Amino acid sequence: MTDSTEKSSNAMWGGRFAAGPDAIMEAINASIGFDKRLYAQDIRGSRAHAAMLAAQGILTDSDAAAIREGLLTVLSEIEAGDFPFSTALEDIHMNVEARLKEIIGEPAGRLHTARSRNDQVATDFRLWVRDQCDAAGTALEALMRALLTQAEAHADWVMPGFTHLQTAQPVTFGHHMMAYVEMIARDRSRFADARKRMNESPLGAAALAGTGFPIDRQMTAEALGFDRPMANSLDAVSDRDFALEFLSASSICAVHLSRLAEELVIWSSAQFRFVAMSDKWSTGSSIMPQKRNPDAAELIRAKIGRILGATVALFTVMKGLPLAYSKDMQEDKEQVFDAADTLMLALAAMTGMISDLTVNRDKLEAAAANGFSTATDLADWLVRAAGLPFREAHHVTGTLVAMAEKKGVDLPDLSLAEMQSVNPAITEDIFRVLGVHNSVASRQSYGGTAPDQVRAQIARWKQVLG
Amino acid sequence: MTDSTEKSSNAMWGGRFAAGPDAIMEAINASIGFDKRLYAQDIRGSRAHAAMLAAQGILTDSDAAAIREGLLTVLSEIEAGDFPFSTALEDIHMNVEARLKEIIGEPAGRLHTARSRNDQVATDFRLWVRDQCDAAGTALEALMRALLTQAEAHADWVMPGFTHLQTAQPVTFGHHMMAYVEMIARDRSRFADARKRMNESPLGAAALAGTGFPIDRQMTAEALGFDRPMANSLDAVSDRDFALEFLSASSICAVHLSRLAEELVIWSSAQFRFVAMSDKWSTGSSIMPQKRNPDAAELIRAKIGRILGATVALFTVMKGLPLAYSKDMQEDKEQVFDAADTLMLALAAMTGMISDLTVNRDKLEAAAANGFSTATDLADWLVRAAGLPFREAHHVTGTLVAMAEKKGVDLPDLSLAEMQSVNPAITEDIFRVLGVHNSVASRQSYGGTAPDQVRAQIARWKQVLG
Amino acid sequence: MTDSTEKSSNAMWGGRFAAGPDAIMEAINASIGFDKRLYAQDIRGSRAHAAMLAAQGILTDSDAAAIREGLLTVLSEIEAGDFPFSTALEDIHMNVEARLKEIIGEPAGRLHTARSRNDQVATDFRLWVRDQCDAAGTALEALMRALLTQAEAHADWVMPGFTHLQTAQPVTFGHHMMAYVEMIARDRSRFADARKRMNESPLGAAALAGTGFPIDRQMTAEALGFDRPMANSLDAVSDRDFALEFLSASSICAVHLSRLAEELVIWSSAQFRFVAMSDKWSTGSSIMPQKRNPDAAELIRAKIGRILGATVALFTVMKGLPLAYSKDMQEDKEQVFDAADTLMLALAAMTGMISDLTVNRDKLEAAAANGFSTATDLADWLVRAAGLPFREAHHVTGTLVAMAEKKGVDLPDLSLAEMQSVNPAITEDIFRVLGVHNSVASRQSYGGTAPDQVRAQIARWKQVLG
Amino acid sequence: MTDSTEKSSNAMWGGRFAAGPDAIMEAINASIGFDKRLYAQDIRGSRAHAAMLAAQGILTDSDAAAIREGLLTVLSEIEAGDFPFSTALEDIHMNVEARLKEIIGEPAGRLHTARSRNDQVATDFRLWVRDQCDAAGTALEALMRALLTQAEAHADWVMPGFTHLQTAQPVTFGHHMMAYVEMIARDRSRFADARKRMNESPLGAAALAGTGFPIDRQMTAEALGFDRPMANSLDAVSDRDFALEFLSASSICAVHLSRLAEELVIWSSAQFRFVAMSDKWSTGSSIMPQKRNPDAAELIRAKIGRILGATVALFTVMKGLPLAYSKDMQEDKEQVFDAADTLMLALAAMTGMISDLTVNRDKLEAAAANGFSTATDLADWLVRAAGLPFREAHHVTGTLVAMAEKKGVDLPDLSLAEMQSVNPAITEDIFRVLGVHNSVASRQSYGGTAPDQVRAQIARWKQVLG
Repeated sequence: MTDSTEKSSNAMWGGRFAAGPDAIMEAINASIGFDKRLYAQDIRGSRAHAAMLAAQGILTDSDAAAIREGLLTVLSEIEAGDFPFSTALEDIHMNVEARLKEIIGEPAGRLHTARSRNDQVATDFRLWVRDQCDAAGTALEALMRALLTQAEAHADWVMPGFTHLQTAQPVTFGHHMMAYVEMIARDRSRFADARKRMNESPLGAAALAGTGFPIDRQMTAEALGFDRPMANSLDAVSDRDFALEFLSASSICAVHLSRLAEELVIWSSAQFRFVAMSDKWSTGSSIMPQKRNPDAAELIRAKIGRILGATVALFTVMKGLPLAYSKDMQEDKEQVFDAADTLMLALAAMTGMISDLTVNRDKLEAAAANGFSTATDLADWLVRAAGLPFREAHHVTGTLVAMAEKKGVDLPDLSLAEMQSVNPAITEDIFRVLGVHNSVASRQSYGGTAPDQVRAQIARWKQVLG
Repeated sequence: MTDSTEKSSNAMWGGRFAAGPDAIMEAINASIGFDKRLYAQDIRGSRAHAAMLAAQGILTDSDAAAIREGLLTVLSEIEAGDFPFSTALEDIHMNVEARLKEIIGEPAGRLHTARSRNDQVATDFRLWVRDQCDAAGTALEALMRALLTQAEAHADWVMPGFTHLQTAQPVTFGHHMMAYVEMIARDRSRFADARKRMNESPLGAAALAGTGFPIDRQMTAEALGFDRPMANSLDAVSDRDFALEFLSASSICAVHLSRLAEELVIWSSAQFRFVAMSDKWSTGSSIMPQKRNPDAAELIRAKIGRILGATVALFTVMKGLPLAYSKDMQEDKEQVFDAADTLMLALAAMTGMISDLTVNRDKLEAAAANGFSTATDLADWLVRAAGLPFREAHHVTGTLVAMAEKKGVDLPDLSLAEMQSVNPAITEDIFRVLGVHNSVASRQSYGGTAPDQVRAQIARWKQVLG
Repeated sequence: MTDSTEKSSNAMWGGRFAAGPDAIMEAINASIGFDKRLYAQDIRGSRAHAAMLAAQGILTDSDAAAIREGLLTVLSEIEAGDFPFSTALEDIHMNVEARLKEIIGEPAGRLHTARSRNDQVATDFRLWVRDQCDAAGTALEALMRALLTQAEAHADWVMPGFTHLQTAQPVTFGHHMMAYVEMIARDRSRFADARKRMNESPLGAAALAGTGFPIDRQMTAEALGFDRPMANSLDAVSDRDFALEFLSASSICAVHLSRLAEELVIWSSAQFRFVAMSDKWSTGSSIMPQKRNPDAAELIRAKIGRILGATVALFTVMKGLPLAYSKDMQEDKEQVFDAADTLMLALAAMTGMISDLTVNRDKLEAAAANGFSTATDLADWLVRAAGLPFREAHHVTGTLVAMAEKKGVDLPDLSLAEMQSVNPAITEDIFRVLGVHNSVASRQSYGGTAPDQVRAQIARWKQVLG
Repeated sequence: MTDSTEKSSNAMWGGRFAAGPDAIMEAINASIGFDKRLYAQDIRGSRAHAAMLAAQGILTDSDAAAIREGLLTVLSEIEAGDFPFSTALEDIHMNVEARLKEIIGEPAGRLHTARSRNDQVATDFRLWVRDQCDAAGTALEALMRALLTQAEAHADWVMPGFTHLQTAQPVTFGHHMMAYVEMIARDRSRFADARKRMNESPLGAAALAGTGFPIDRQMTAEALGFDRPMANSLDAVSDRDFALEFLSASSICAVHLSRLAEELVIWSSAQFRFVAMSDKWSTGSSIMPQKRNPDAAELIRAKIGRILGATVALFTVMKGLPLAYSKDMQEDKEQVFDAADTLMLALAAMTGMISDLTVNRDKLEAAAANGFSTATDLADWLVRAAGLPFREAHHVTGTLVAMAEKKGVDLPDLSLAEMQSVNPAITEDIFRVLGVHNSVASRQSYGGTAPDQVRAQIARWKQVLG
């Protein structure tokens, strides 16, 4: 992207150069192959610019009206799929402007007054990324709702709480789902912050120095929904923070999706069978009926690679670039386009998968009880109710676990007498904390896994999402 | 990091395992080598926890007082450099607790009631990263002040505004500095947002499920300066978003520093000589007096590599980890420690370099006038004042530039008669926009490079920073 | 990609699932949009497989002939652009097989005997990447030739040898070009090693376990130009090392290109003017004749971002994947396709730019003499010829430089008497090492910048490249 | 790192600069904190250089002898831990040289003749990385031996071969281990290639241009075990390909380790119990006897993050650096040091874990039979022995699986009569392929999972490793 006075592939400069760009140069230089995705933003920006030029007396009202009307025609042509994009015209800006000239003639040439391709592309791309922040917000809310629905339906279904993929303590399935609601809510908040920070208008920075025309940047900023114009024209054309921040937020979100996807892959293995994926999101075998491959979950798990790759790509491109504009920055769009498309697709697929998920209560509960998972509850009870010091409580617990293990039973299957033979301070009350249901019910601390707590969090989030 | 019941390197579990961990396991497993940096946060968190346990009647007041007092002793021992860190005790938490026991005896064993190493480490690390957000804010403000001082001193010194490292239009040195003020201000805002988002307390999540003890998470949250307790115990112990967001914000900031550093390296080359680095930030040659190597600028330019590397490292570590805690997450700290140290050092060095920078007015101004850099101004004047269409204005400008080039002079050196021979609509007024000083003075659009605009932005930022 | 028995989107399994995949699943799951690029490799692999099946008596000769002939028809249809790729058929393998069935009927169904989509895709992709290694080799040789031509033409043109972008010692332009010949030659060697390592055939691994059919893997390996069959069927279908190694080699090569591109951008700035880019590889301004934007160089400089991003993407995807095949691995192709396309384009553009480069002898030579760049030569002479200790030699040199600086002249402009006033051991012989031409001529150590040495290296490389 | 004439922190240039470097500059600039790890390489390189200088008559034999002897004294001081490293002396080279001067006096000053810190550091670091290639080779062989031992012990133990973490076909545990032998063998070959490519000597490139002293680069190259001197002096001091290639090879290896580690984590979960980790490599709980946390496996899984991060870091640092030396390159060492240490530790831990692994035959075999995992064998038999077309064979198989599923039995439990009721072509011979043991035994294709094939591969590798 260069100053308006430096259109690099058309007749204006062609005369100055002995040789025209050949196929390689066109292949490496032209951006129309991808930046045509900015058409709506480009036309919106140009219409706002024309209206402002007229309001400031830089353009006649009739010229501005012709331009604004002509741009709508271009828009409808593109949306109808009738627009003949030209690689020779290099980018979306020149394609739109050239077509506008065909439609309305001479006034088209006045549109570029007090503007440059540098601030134009910065404006277009920023509007596009801003739209993606909004789209991410909507998609994240949909996923939160899907998780909330699953959480509500299984608020008191016990499952193993894992550390190191080893059963540590019982939790509820609803509680596990709600952990992802928290993560996804942070993602939503991160995109919202990014949107707010990027919501300043580069338009009017011109090539890089501002302009001598009496433009009104506040007016175009407002027309385009920006909070204010950017305060430095060099920064306006050379900043790609908004893209880097969008990519970073997308990468964090993709990490969350990869974690949930990994759990779904593991949980749907024959060895776990905690959940069953819907046919919509898995593929099968014609001759192995029990094989249900979690393809969608695996692909979502992989998408962090693609999004992190795009993030690294743009960081590397921007490293060490002098101000203001360098052509290197043309590499920004494809990375962001691909990351945004990937994120939206992954969010949609995950929302679908979670909505369709079938949960296996028996498998979860059996696994939750595995490995004396309420031993901690027993030890805590000894501290809390029987007043034992922490260390002694652990010793007693170890002895009781060994006793149960030897008998081949779980802790709640020991009799009170057996327990008292180890420590006489134990009372009938102990049975209120043993067993996985008692265990989860007892975790009443704020944010804990007790079904009451889980339901309180579900209620809070439902209110937030409206 | 594991549940309090799973201390992995000391006597408690030693008995269960036939063989002890050997040197390799200790080398890969122990974290005390790096997590001792969390000592202040660990002690602060434990003191808040003890006070809460007492307030809730879970601990006696005297035990709590002994613990809180003993922890201060440990703190002062560590700060005095007298503390014998033990690798056998694996991590900072066990080191502190073991020493506390030596100091106050039995009550030390009660501190860990209703807590786990999982929520303890999450709290400690979060407090540490929160401190770094604050430190980044302070360092960024210092850099902004240094940039503002340079901008103010050179608000009207003209220099080339570059695109593609080619002179495009004149700007002022002050304007260029202010572009970085905008970038750095966004960094500041990004760390502030990250801080706000991370400012929730994991403490009380216990191992992963919450606890049956009647704890008051609101109280510990407040004592530690958190806005609220985290709402889901699984999320509390498995979340590392705060670290990923800190790293992402650091990477964006490091990109900014790399861009400014690159400019300083180029500007201080013999061919540019726009600026001279102070002796404090460069190295020289005993026999080549004009060689002044911009070592600090080059090192700052390189630091984006290190910070981006740390960012990629933690993203990769977190990819696909099931909830709640996996040992993989122990890899989080070293990356964040190194990135934070690197960022703070780079910011300090850049602030020093900018403060000490000497600017070469003559070199800048000569370069600004290079290549008919005010041709755009001429063309704009023809559109604005003489009413020519954009395209005709460019044709006229091209002819005048060719005339000047042939005569070996710059545009303002052409006579009015010569100009009128190309287009009679040109008037004496044209000389008000030609020449680099006129050019920059004319760029009065908001955020433009006109010295008035630059000074207005300086004034605004000085008010913001107080 | 899954076993042949698990075709995920067509009628075979459709009946087993209550619900069909909807649009989201198709969007995330289908690979035909990109893997159609493997069509030639897929057909080549299938033809080799059919021939082997016949040779082993698993297929009749007539069936094999029909299959092999039919596949050629499919190939010509695709190459003619007449092939109707179907998303419902998911991938290139199913598209080819389905079309084959339309053409030859029933025998088409026998082609997939003793084969699976897992080994098929592994074979196709490996063949494609192997082709890219060859293409990279050819492109790298072309760039080496272009560099050699420039080196030969300017073997004795002096220029500044920079450290820290500060003039350190004179070198020749030819020597500088030859440094890149060495780098590019290492790239060539790296791709050759990668090719050799990847040149083993996965075909015959079937789904993952090998097969009970009496296949001859050696025969298909030979037919496809592989050195041997891979020795473990699980590894054969789950290995993507060849892609990771190709990406790593591409990233290193892209670093080299970015360094040369950076130099070209700096060298073509108004301040340096060491070189002028051809019009073919730069863009200009209609009204600023001296502005020549090095667009192609900037874009090449940026491409390391894209290629490194792709590399990080695939590393992240592969992290922690259990054997044998996981759907995550479908993310491999787009990254490699994009990186390979990018590398080939960047190499072509760089070769063109280097070939067309104009070098400015006067600017280079003037810059080379800047800053007493032969002070080192003087000091070395004092050690070598006059026998001074290193440190004293430096002291004498510093004094002479100060004398020259005071007089406003360069070192060779001092008279012998002036020099002897500082140290009487200096003789007329000193003038043989002062001055940039003498300096470079004296650097006769192997690989040094003396034109003789440079020409010897040029000759060596021309012989190597033939 | 700069030319020998540009020592940046000591008295030589101190006099030229009005102000000395302050604490920040020292913190960002000094490298002794990490490059002291190069002491042995530095001393080895200097000793070779001194011997060559004497052989060429540049140094007297007695000076050279004093230097070489003195350097051995320095070496022994450092190895004894007695060496007082000085930050003021900035780097390892100055530390060694300054100490040498204290020990032997004046001749120490002659060592640096015809050498620069630029080629010195390039030589030292290259020697260090070369050593790491060798160390990696040794460590990889140890891991291969551990895998071979496990493979041999379990060559015919059947386990599920997974795709998508779903049972696809039976394989043997030995076969699974051998897949990793193949991967690790490729790693070994990659480090060997990297070593060979990097094995050229930079020594004698001097600052960047070569030298006028009559040095013999071949002699120092041989003394240091290099194959030859590097052929271009600019390349010699600015090349860091060897580091990038080492990091890339390390990243690929770390991916392999992460995959195996992930499998070990999953396999040791309560739901799988395929393997049990030794107590040496896992941690437990005092009160939950069955909980055995696979800490070492998780940490190894995470290490790809760290190594990939280091790789990205150095790629980013090197992006766009002009020749020859820039201070940015000082960032190379810490990344490579950390990656190498991490890789060696991870390899050692993995070797230990694999050696100590206990495999659960019953669990593996039960899981292998899960989900009609030999349905493919049945279908293949119908094609092979009964001559059915592929598609019809699948239809018959589906019907038989449905029959078995309905009866609640596995395929080999159906009677011949029942099978023949579906398709009369089925004979008694069918039972030779049903059942997991028959299935694996039948996979006799080269590289297949049949125990004979597995044992043949084990034998081959044992011979290769000697």
